Amino acid sequence: MEKNKEYVIGVDLGGTKIFAAVVDRDGKILATARKKTKVELGFDRVVRRIADCILQAARSAQIDIETQIKAIGIGSPGPLDLKEGKIISSHNLQWYDAPLKSALEGLLNKPVIVENDCNVGILGEQAYGAGRDAKHIVGLFIGTGIGGGIIVNDKLLHGYNDNAGEFGHVILNPNGPRCGCGNKGCLEAYSSRSAIEREIRRAIKKGQSSLIANSAEEKKEKLGSKKIAEAYSKGDSVVTNAINKSAQYIGYSVASILNTFNPQVVIIGGGLVEAIGEPYLEIVRKTAESNVFPIAMRNVKIVSAELKDDSAILGAAVLAMNGKM
Amino acid sequence: MEKNKEYVIGVDLGGTKIFAAVVDRDGKILATARKKTKVELGFDRVVRRIADCILQAARSAQIDIETQIKAIGIGSPGPLDLKEGKIISSHNLQWYDAPLKSALEGLLNKPVIVENDCNVGILGEQAYGAGRDAKHIVGLFIGTGIGGGIIVNDKLLHGYNDNAGEFGHVILNPNGPRCGCGNKGCLEAYSSRSAIEREIRRAIKKGQSSLIANSAEEKKEKLGSKKIAEAYSKGDSVVTNAINKSAQYIGYSVASILNTFNPQVVIIGGGLVEAIGEPYLEIVRKTAESNVFPIAMRNVKIVSAELKDDSAILGAAVLAMNGKM
Repeated sequence: MEKNKEYVIGVDLGGTKIFAAVVDRDGKILATARKKTKVELGFDRVVRRIADCILQAARSAQIDIETQIKAIGIGSPGPLDLKEGKIISSHNLQWYDAPLKSALEGLLNKPVIVENDCNVGILGEQAYGAGRDAKHIVGLFIGTGIGGGIIVNDKLLHGYNDNAGEFGHVILNPNGPRCGCGNKGCLEAYSSRSAIEREIRRAIKKGQSSLIANSAEEKKEKLGSKKIAEAYSKGDSVVTNAINKSAQYIGYSVASILNTFNPQVVIIGGGLVEAIGEPYLEIVRKTAESNVFPIAMRNVKIVSAELKDDSAILGAAVLAMNGKM
Repeated sequence: MEKNKEYVIGVDLGGTKIFAAVVDRDGKILATARKKTKVELGFDRVVRRIADCILQAARSAQIDIETQIKAIGIGSPGPLDLKEGKIISSHNLQWYDAPLKSALEGLLNKPVIVENDCNVGILGEQAYGAGRDAKHIVGLFIGTGIGGGIIVNDKLLHGYNDNAGEFGHVILNPNGPRCGCGNKGCLEAYSSRSAIEREIRRAIKKGQSSLIANSAEEKKEKLGSKKIAEAYSKGDSVVTNAINKSAQYIGYSVASILNTFNPQVVIIGGGLVEAIGEPYLEIVRKTAESNVFPIAMRNVKIVSAELKDDSAILGAAVLAMNGKM
């Protein structure tokens, strides 16, 4: 560890875990630390856990946080008040109007910058992953829900209410299936991990045979990405149908994204999608290609996220390095 | 006319007519001129007609184009190569790879800036119309087709291939009605003027009675905006259904726009929509409101374009004043 070098901390804050890293100016991760979030402890104690996780990463990197850390970037669920660094509301964290920035600055005496988790993901991919050298990027992250991040002219697009990039709730059919948000036919209702699982369980319930029938029948168990990806690679028809439908609707959305945002790179991330990889992307590309103006597709790449679990900590580190939203 | 004052020319170029104006720094229109485009004459002669139209406007404003005009801005159908000022292809103008900028600069010896017609429309509305003081704006222009323009952080969003803002081809239902572009369920297939007319003619053909039944039966005649708006205001049910459906689907799209671009102002323009006015906008607002995250709607305005036929010439003038795309 060079004593005079300056580092930053990137934090990926979720409802389940806190993940912190010490990162240098070249995006090299020196050390990481993880802690369970333990949402049930409430805001003050969770903030203390975030601070502890940061200190642990710094210790493990043999960094003196007081003299060697420039700033701390955090990717958080939202919606957020970016200026104040507040979480306006997060179901996952059970936080409402929670002053994360000021609370953590109080504990660590370092500048803290809070940003939407999908936005830091896309910042990370731009700096060190699938979006390198691109100035117009849209990222879609497919998990329980679907989130997105947008970079336009090399800057995050936040929008008027800091709520840009909610691609999960783009309407793909006003009379489509009910979405978790209460509306109908949102992308999330077709393509999220939850939609895929629902589709698989429904087919199995109907009596269709599947390699993951046993796991699916134990209702409480979440179907693992690995398990689903394995069944997909073996050609399991129930799983294949559910996955392909998800990819197809992502493709329709990507067509709309290309016709409106016209990015250079579309990055698709999320554990399940990344586990399946190219076959998923191929369907997205084909569907997008046959539903978009050819010019909006010219030299455009539709690719998988590259940084996996590190995209958020690295993006949060980029935020901390740049010292602004 | 002050001899030492500098002016610009704004041009609205369409397949039917050329509309040019001399504009001062405050957006005041000093004089205008109009000419038929006469597409059938071909590129060289149409460019000459544009030049003539510009000279005519200058004469009528008693302006010496050589000493008093800073630059010429043109709003043109696209897609365009903005850097080269070329029309890549325009069905309306029957131009393909047409070097408008260089040809007109050759004739008039003034800097010419070419921009997409919807983009200049939104620039005009931002400078002098419904988008005043807003830095995040999305405009939807509903005509034969549907075009759009986007301002993000006070700048036009062009995208990687200069093809951003094609909201007419956002997919609202992958199994919906066929769109003119060949795909299915695009917004244009539900909400454009053509879609409205198609819906009206279909209902009348089925035997439903309507105040505009006679005009609709003469197949060649385009149904006038005024005539449709009149029938709407009288409560004609065929016309009302068609218009309300158009507004409803615009509303779904606006919800998606709010959730992704999160603009401060959404401007809806186009002759027919402006002729109907508030009743149309009310449906758009209500549909958007019930399909969007409340936070993305907070303090957001969904309003009618204000500048009517002048939005493009004024936006083109703004381009010319700023001297860049």
